[in-house]
Amino acid sequence: MRAPLLALLSDFGHVDPYVGVMKAVVLARCPDLPIVDLTHEVPPQDLRWGAFLLRGALPYLPTGSVVLAIVDPGVGGARRLLCAEAEGRLLLGPDNGLLPAALAGCAARWTALDPARGFGLGRPSATFHGRDLFAPAAARLAAGVSVRELGDEIADPVRVEAPSDGGPGTKNAGRIAVVDRYGNLISDLAPGDDGWEARDAVLELAGRWTLRPVRTYSDVASGELLAYVGSYGTYEIAVRDGSAAERLQLGAGASLVLRRGES
Amino acid sequence: MRAPLLALLSDFGHVDPYVGVMKAVVLARCPDLPIVDLTHEVPPQDLRWGAFLLRGALPYLPTGSVVLAIVDPGVGGARRLLCAEAEGRLLLGPDNGLLPAALAGCAARWTALDPARGFGLGRPSATFHGRDLFAPAAARLAAGVSVRELGDEIADPVRVEAPSDGGPGTKNAGRIAVVDRYGNLISDLAPGDDGWEARDAVLELAGRWTLRPVRTYSDVASGELLAYVGSYGTYEIAVRDGSAAERLQLGAGASLVLRRGES
Amino acid sequence: MRAPLLALLSDFGHVDPYVGVMKAVVLARCPDLPIVDLTHEVPPQDLRWGAFLLRGALPYLPTGSVVLAIVDPGVGGARRLLCAEAEGRLLLGPDNGLLPAALAGCAARWTALDPARGFGLGRPSATFHGRDLFAPAAARLAAGVSVRELGDEIADPVRVEAPSDGGPGTKNAGRIAVVDRYGNLISDLAPGDDGWEARDAVLELAGRWTLRPVRTYSDVASGELLAYVGSYGTYEIAVRDGSAAERLQLGAGASLVLRRGES
Repeated sequence: MRAPLLALLSDFGHVDPYVGVMKAVVLARCPDLPIVDLTHEVPPQDLRWGAFLLRGALPYLPTGSVVLAIVDPGVGGARRLLCAEAEGRLLLGPDNGLLPAALAGCAARWTALDPARGFGLGRPSATFHGRDLFAPAAARLAAGVSVRELGDEIADPVRVEAPSDGGPGTKNAGRIAVVDRYGNLISDLAPGDDGWEARDAVLELAGRWTLRPVRTYSDVASGELLAYVGSYGTYEIAVRDGSAAERLQLGAGASLVLRRGES
Repeated sequence: MRAPLLALLSDFGHVDPYVGVMKAVVLARCPDLPIVDLTHEVPPQDLRWGAFLLRGALPYLPTGSVVLAIVDPGVGGARRLLCAEAEGRLLLGPDNGLLPAALAGCAARWTALDPARGFGLGRPSATFHGRDLFAPAAARLAAGVSVRELGDEIADPVRVEAPSDGGPGTKNAGRIAVVDRYGNLISDLAPGDDGWEARDAVLELAGRWTLRPVRTYSDVASGELLAYVGSYGTYEIAVRDGSAAERLQLGAGASLVLRRGES
Repeated sequence: MRAPLLALLSDFGHVDPYVGVMKAVVLARCPDLPIVDLTHEVPPQDLRWGAFLLRGALPYLPTGSVVLAIVDPGVGGARRLLCAEAEGRLLLGPDNGLLPAALAGCAARWTALDPARGFGLGRPSATFHGRDLFAPAAARLAAGVSVRELGDEIADPVRVEAPSDGGPGTKNAGRIAVVDRYGNLISDLAPGDDGWEARDAVLELAGRWTLRPVRTYSDVASGELLAYVGSYGTYEIAVRDGSAAERLQLGAGASLVLRRGES
């Protein structure tokens, strides 16, 4: 059965034709497949940023979706081509930690895609595996080909250190993971991560600002700083009608600590 | 009957995965629906800019199209979810003035979409109604569900002041509404807005430049300033092979007055 | 037979709704046609940049594809609307040198599309032929209409000087054609262009840097400068985990000379 869609995420940007060429390669092999761009503006080679965004998007992709995620500083080297079967979806990407980080906490079955199985373009380049290997592999999987036909199962995908992936109840310190277009500071800490009720959480940002979460922007006056649980399910810091990143001069990596307030 | 396409307009930008996630939510509910991005680079929270672009694009969308337009500083607050039936199309967006401004001059039937009717995702966030409420509502409408099933008719959509929407013959002063990628200054004044023949119009820009409209760029020499009726059907100011915004140091909001010249 | 896809390339950018409106015009005339954006971020009015990118993308578009490429400083003037049949694909664009440069070296049959044949929108504007003439023409061709119905064959498309299009064996000097998002300097010189084996090529960049090509990024240490054959099949200069454009302060137009090293 054909996949309902192919979702793409990369650090390729919108200036170069890299993404469009990948799509053409896919459509030549899986006609009329809907293709959705999650984002191509992951900061160049920033695995953690890409993994955080992918993790937030996954629950909204229909079951059966194929996902191609490419942030790939090691292209052309020895790193493997990875496929994960997880949560009813198929994820493809370089074996550099991106996919395990995006799937933190989910059971997954891993496959190393083997170009010797003949799924790639004729003479793959050493610098654009997205076009020459990943896109044609994704097209076959989206068309209904079994992962087993493209490679063998493995148990040891590369993992990057992810100190804050222990799930609820295990941590009270995180960091700002990404900054969005509005200057909202989006963290990797969620309500309950420290094992307490979210109700009386107090957040300490960068060791300097202390915030008690509210529900949404309109709970504070225009121009005021606020914390809230955002659309990723994690705490975010914003300025209503303004940019928190600009106001506080903070970006990805800033620390966020969950403390308990007196209620 | 399925809609021919869903058109999207927002201030979400291309850096974050917000647009892609909305598309995935739509395609999960209305498979294979063509989705067209009008733009997602409306300046953050700039209702007027968004309304002007939407108004210019509407006539080119096929009859039966569904349009989702989100510039939504009040998300999560008390503002309603709006749907307009107008000109054979369905438009969805926050009830903050965006849709009425985009539809200025067209008869419309208004509905307040009611999340209690069950069209939204399980637990809507307070900050991303585009994903959690608007996208699933748009998908149902595009799939052929009647607007009546999603909410009740209303007569009082929020309207923002729109001093220059009186139609032909009623005004001789407007403003620069948007600046495009080429630095063209695009106004909301159209030929005949002052009730005269366009033939001998003279335009006064920002009280400082006086221009007699020509037909197109090649009617002046490279590097010269010109006024003409652009692709929105309104007067634009450009520099051939250059940027009028840069040359004149002007942007959205600059005044444009229609005067009569001696012919 | 319907085309497998329509590919778009332009200098329209992503801020304005120009591209989205073109797509709506196409989908109104050729429902459900897959549309792929190659890029819309060609530097404004830069024909050579656009032609280079199109040339690199063409081999990856499925046979039967329709391509609409618009970099059109002469819009509204006397320039013709061009269609090329080449390599099993149909390319549309302004008659200003863009298509011949993109097709350098390929046999092509040329047609001047004639708006009097009635394919355009009702009253075409003088500034947006992409929407008013090219998009509806592309939609008809994608839907299976013959090029012959839209215009007459011509033999004299406008050509821009292209000093480096002689093919293998004819040249040993080129230039940086485009700079990509990573700051990679992408040239128009390919292995064998000077008639020698690629094996012992030595590249001289901007008269100042001498590089012996390696296979891929991981063949040098992080932070090091390298030359290699990139995904366009031409020589590129990069800095591993960095930006060559920034490091060397070079951009499009910089000279690249192929010399022979001692092996």
